[in-house]
Amino acid sequence: MKKLFVIPILLIAYASSSGQSHPSIMLTKQKVEAVRKGIAMYPLLQQSFAAVQKTADEALAAPIVVPVPKDGGGGYTHEQHKKNYQNILACGVAYQVTKEAKYAKYVQDILLEYARQYKTWPLHPKRKDGQEAGRIFWQNLNDCVWQVYVIQGYDLVYDYLPADKRKIIEEELFTPIIHFLTVDATATFNRIHNHATWSCAAVGMTGYVTGNKEWSEMALKGSAKDGKTGYLKQLDELFSPDGYYTEGPYYQRYALLPFVVFARAIQQYQPELKVYQARDGVLSKAIQIALQLTYTNGAFFPVNDAMKDKTYESEEMVYGTDIAYSDIQPEADLLDVAMRQKRVIVSDAGLEVAKDVAAGKAKPFVYKSLWVRDGAKGDEGGLGVLRWGKNEDQQCVLLKAAAQGMGHGHFDRLNMLYYDNGVEVFSDYGSARFLNIESKHGGDYLPENNAFAKQTIIHNTLVVDEKSDFNGKLGDAEQSHPDLLYFDAGPSLQVVSAKEDHAYKGVSLTRTLIYLPVEGLKKTLLIDVSKAVSANAHQYDLPFWYQGHLTNIPFAVQANTKELKPLGTAAGYQFLWLNGSGGFSGNGSSFLTFLNNNRFYTTSFVTDSNTVVKLVTTGANDPEFNLRNEQAFILSHKNTASHSFVAITEAHGNTNPTAETTTGAMTSVGKLAVTEDDAAHTVFQFEVLQKQYTIRLNYTNQNHFIQVDKP
Amino acid sequence: MKKLFVIPILLIAYASSSGQSHPSIMLTKQKVEAVRKGIAMYPLLQQSFAAVQKTADEALAAPIVVPVPKDGGGGYTHEQHKKNYQNILACGVAYQVTKEAKYAKYVQDILLEYARQYKTWPLHPKRKDGQEAGRIFWQNLNDCVWQVYVIQGYDLVYDYLPADKRKIIEEELFTPIIHFLTVDATATFNRIHNHATWSCAAVGMTGYVTGNKEWSEMALKGSAKDGKTGYLKQLDELFSPDGYYTEGPYYQRYALLPFVVFARAIQQYQPELKVYQARDGVLSKAIQIALQLTYTNGAFFPVNDAMKDKTYESEEMVYGTDIAYSDIQPEADLLDVAMRQKRVIVSDAGLEVAKDVAAGKAKPFVYKSLWVRDGAKGDEGGLGVLRWGKNEDQQCVLLKAAAQGMGHGHFDRLNMLYYDNGVEVFSDYGSARFLNIESKHGGDYLPENNAFAKQTIIHNTLVVDEKSDFNGKLGDAEQSHPDLLYFDAGPSLQVVSAKEDHAYKGVSLTRTLIYLPVEGLKKTLLIDVSKAVSANAHQYDLPFWYQGHLTNIPFAVQANTKELKPLGTAAGYQFLWLNGSGGFSGNGSSFLTFLNNNRFYTTSFVTDSNTVVKLVTTGANDPEFNLRNEQAFILSHKNTASHSFVAITEAHGNTNPTAETTTGAMTSVGKLAVTEDDAAHTVFQFEVLQKQYTIRLNYTNQNHFIQVDKP
Repeated sequence: MKKLFVIPILLIAYASSSGQSHPSIMLTKQKVEAVRKGIAMYPLLQQSFAAVQKTADEALAAPIVVPVPKDGGGGYTHEQHKKNYQNILACGVAYQVTKEAKYAKYVQDILLEYARQYKTWPLHPKRKDGQEAGRIFWQNLNDCVWQVYVIQGYDLVYDYLPADKRKIIEEELFTPIIHFLTVDATATFNRIHNHATWSCAAVGMTGYVTGNKEWSEMALKGSAKDGKTGYLKQLDELFSPDGYYTEGPYYQRYALLPFVVFARAIQQYQPELKVYQARDGVLSKAIQIALQLTYTNGAFFPVNDAMKDKTYESEEMVYGTDIAYSDIQPEADLLDVAMRQKRVIVSDAGLEVAKDVAAGKAKPFVYKSLWVRDGAKGDEGGLGVLRWGKNEDQQCVLLKAAAQGMGHGHFDRLNMLYYDNGVEVFSDYGSARFLNIESKHGGDYLPENNAFAKQTIIHNTLVVDEKSDFNGKLGDAEQSHPDLLYFDAGPSLQVVSAKEDHAYKGVSLTRTLIYLPVEGLKKTLLIDVSKAVSANAHQYDLPFWYQGHLTNIPFAVQANTKELKPLGTAAGYQFLWLNGSGGFSGNGSSFLTFLNNNRFYTTSFVTDSNTVVKLVTTGANDPEFNLRNEQAFILSHKNTASHSFVAITEAHGNTNPTAETTTGAMTSVGKLAVTEDDAAHTVFQFEVLQKQYTIRLNYTNQNHFIQVDKP
Repeated sequence: MKKLFVIPILLIAYASSSGQSHPSIMLTKQKVEAVRKGIAMYPLLQQSFAAVQKTADEALAAPIVVPVPKDGGGGYTHEQHKKNYQNILACGVAYQVTKEAKYAKYVQDILLEYARQYKTWPLHPKRKDGQEAGRIFWQNLNDCVWQVYVIQGYDLVYDYLPADKRKIIEEELFTPIIHFLTVDATATFNRIHNHATWSCAAVGMTGYVTGNKEWSEMALKGSAKDGKTGYLKQLDELFSPDGYYTEGPYYQRYALLPFVVFARAIQQYQPELKVYQARDGVLSKAIQIALQLTYTNGAFFPVNDAMKDKTYESEEMVYGTDIAYSDIQPEADLLDVAMRQKRVIVSDAGLEVAKDVAAGKAKPFVYKSLWVRDGAKGDEGGLGVLRWGKNEDQQCVLLKAAAQGMGHGHFDRLNMLYYDNGVEVFSDYGSARFLNIESKHGGDYLPENNAFAKQTIIHNTLVVDEKSDFNGKLGDAEQSHPDLLYFDAGPSLQVVSAKEDHAYKGVSLTRTLIYLPVEGLKKTLLIDVSKAVSANAHQYDLPFWYQGHLTNIPFAVQANTKELKPLGTAAGYQFLWLNGSGGFSGNGSSFLTFLNNNRFYTTSFVTDSNTVVKLVTTGANDPEFNLRNEQAFILSHKNTASHSFVAITEAHGNTNPTAETTTGAMTSVGKLAVTEDDAAHTVFQFEVLQKQYTIRLNYTNQNHFIQVDKP
């Protein structure tokens, strides 16, 4: 009660000292006339505003509905409150652009209605244990998102509102909301976590717009205003020095929005803080890295819990791209991204982007081969990305050697994802979830997310003794991380190598991925050396989750044609049907070929009498049919202390369904053999087009890590 | 020997009487200058010629290689001879457009090389039993295709060639080829079959171009010149009066090319035959029907043996579209097709198309709801197609009630295919084949094409007692055909109904598909009434091969989580894994919902204690992993003499992965019940948005076939 009494005084004090005019965040009073003209001139801005206005007009056409909060995610009141904040922002923008009072009046009326009801709402009835509750929504997080949108809408109609209405809205709605976020939910507000970023953005922006310095200061420095928590601390700790967010690209995208929008507000109100320059420009790096962690089709690499169809066309990345281009550094290749996003935020930043796109300044987005460090200090492993070829037809391989990524992390140390020809080749399942589909476990993560999707065997990485990394225990996994051994992305050879010593007791794992372009082949070879070193005998399984259809299996496979049984009983194995398996009588090499998006892929591998290839599909022990149909071949090696799997994947030939022609269906790679293999070295040779190549890996020698003998 | 002596005399006689100048078929001397100018002016023609010239230049850059025929389909000599005829045509066109002698010289040199060798080639060593052999290729058919292309190339460089070279090519190459096709392979030449059309086109066009009337007359009227066989007879008998080719759209497309190109040649040389007007314009109808038998994504309905990725972008349809527009009837919506084909034939016809496309005359292709008759007389059943909505988002359902379609026909009487939102919803497997992929059964039809793909259970149609139509016997199936009961495609209701009395002894089958638009729903409902009438008890299985992922199964399913077994032992059932099944305790209705391309589909169906729903996936008894992964739910009803399956499929709601929103995940349809059902009637009711609808089908009453009671 004491606090509530103090706040209005501070509010007045700050407002007068600031003198900031409204609107003041994404769209500013200084630029609104230019944005209005830009809408008439630049197609991207025009269509973006048309979409906003459509939302606004639909809002005006419907009655204002502010229901008493009742339903969980995906339910009626949840969706209605979500729609309301979108409408508030859309009407705010429509008001500024058209100057038609009807849009501002909608914002006024709906906020007065919220102000009338808000204080009567208790904690949400559908709140879940272990999650900070909201009052409008089941989670505190959603309340914060609501306020981040609403305060922008309020800012946009600020000048329209009579003082008495502003007073009601600020005192009866925003003040109790901020009290709720900073006092009742202070634990969340003061976390170093992306949920807290949303909370700080909500509180801080509300402080700026309403002129309440107390709020904006708490948002920047934590509720104790000592800088130990709050937005600036989050900026220091939640991204690695390269701008990587440890949960992975899917969550990086989500976390970016409050970081970016609040940064824009800070820049407007407290430019002296130089927030865009903070920590050597980490915000800019975070936006750039989020884009770099996509394939050329725009899809984020789906490591850890991720919805696979998420691309950089999502709204968060539109904010990120526009602000990065307009406010931080106008890189021409960001315009390429904006064009693929097909929209901009109707704002100062969006104006700049749309103008320069219209001026033809866009250049193709520059995808790079790179090593991205994980960890606040950049010393907790990372992601290696190798790229080859133009954006139109690019080979891209990812080595996941990052830290665990908190609760959304998968147990897939040294996982590999491979893309080519616009599509996935060796893929990741992503998370097991039907987002917002009520009939599928309420739209939340499915039980199979833990039991299946997080397990090691469901990824393209080595499994020891049919167990997952760290036995699937999060606490253990968070204690350590893989380490980079070597990275080089030269014009004639690209290499990334990393090691993982803790995932399995007594087994040291190393994986090396190599792009080797070879004379006579159009595409580079992908060479994969997965090495396990141990003093004791183990079973090593290396799955390749491939997309496409097997067209050539030159070795004998015992197919399970009359009956299918699960491959195992635990660690994800229980979800795999064993469709068939094939062994080998002696030392040699063999291969599998599959056809994917009209191109052939052949994976050649070394064989011996301990090698078995297992063909599996998902679907066992799935009583509710929750799993997608996916398929893998597993290179399995048993009774072995140390072993190196050497697998070379060639992309070759094509089929043309229109012309009904097929070319290059046979691989050019053969006679693969490992000639030397110990803890410090792996040496192997193979033929391409009948010419012999030898590769020597020296794991302990940074200066001569790899040696390639070409014909 | 006698014939060979006579021919040269006729040749001279015809040439002088004709006075035709060269080139004379697709591209003519009269139009070549206009085409040349058009290439500079019209983008579509420009890019089309650029592609032709690229092929021609690549041909010139490589040495001429005419290998002794040795390999089967897909093998080296096969592909080389195929490449050669494509090069000959490309160089002919390039010569006419550029007037550069180098292109014509290439044609001269390679044809002289063929002339030098051809007579030394015996029947092809890889010829197959039961297929007429070729000499250049393993099949006579391919030799005919070769000649159809080559004679056009020859015509294009005719004026360049010195008389002595022409003499060598005509006497040493074309004369023995035509002798081979008309005398040695006279049985094929005189068939009423698409292979014979290729043969007649080859012979007839060669006759025209070389001035040999004997050849062109044989081509038109059969080798006896009595009109009992030959091209004109084929035109009479191979298409139905509506222009439908009985093998289905995939083969219709293939058969069209020789029909269309030869027609153009006939029109040039013997316009008095009015070939385009023959049989009430059947050629034009055949082109139009081929286009109508595609979904809006351009893909042909894959009934019978069909490669599923075949679209109207294939070369045959480019010829067909260009000639239909230019020579027969300039329908503006054909230009839409040409734009999606992204090319034209560099020819008189292509010029017209490219010019009018450039002039902006294109209109969206007009897809129609229609009944397409099968059989030479149009009395052997047909295909019913219902369409709803604009091309951008069209619901399309096909009822297959056509005749068997010869050896490529599937045993799928009254099969249903359903498309929506740009994709397949209830799909057909097509043929089991990896075309031209050597490692998959030589690229030919797989053994599973007969054992699996042709069987009734693999289609969306009723199966009686786990057996296929006609027990899968082609001879029996060819004796009869389904019959149309009713067709109506009005603005407020669309209906197609057909019956099949012979597929199963003692069981009369009727299927009725209805499009019923309902107030409050954005998309029309698809209502499917599959009826079996019999005096004896049977098991009836009605599969729905769906695309997408099940998201809602409101009834209890016993899932086979620990072990999978095949559903049956024969008639295709042996290839299906039974994943789970669910029964019902009493009368009522239930449903299944699946998500496909971000839209929900719910199929509601009537239940009783004899109803079981079986969930199956393909893959059992497939030791070589030849089958694609497909899935179905089967409505199964046992111990029943007569039964009607009533199933209503609603397309509803959507998920937006970018915005992470979901709407309308629940169906609006419910309380489905059959209230009356005998041989002459089926009456059923259901609710949509809590309002009741009743539909009465009167199978024997054409005037009141369907009665709909709306709220």
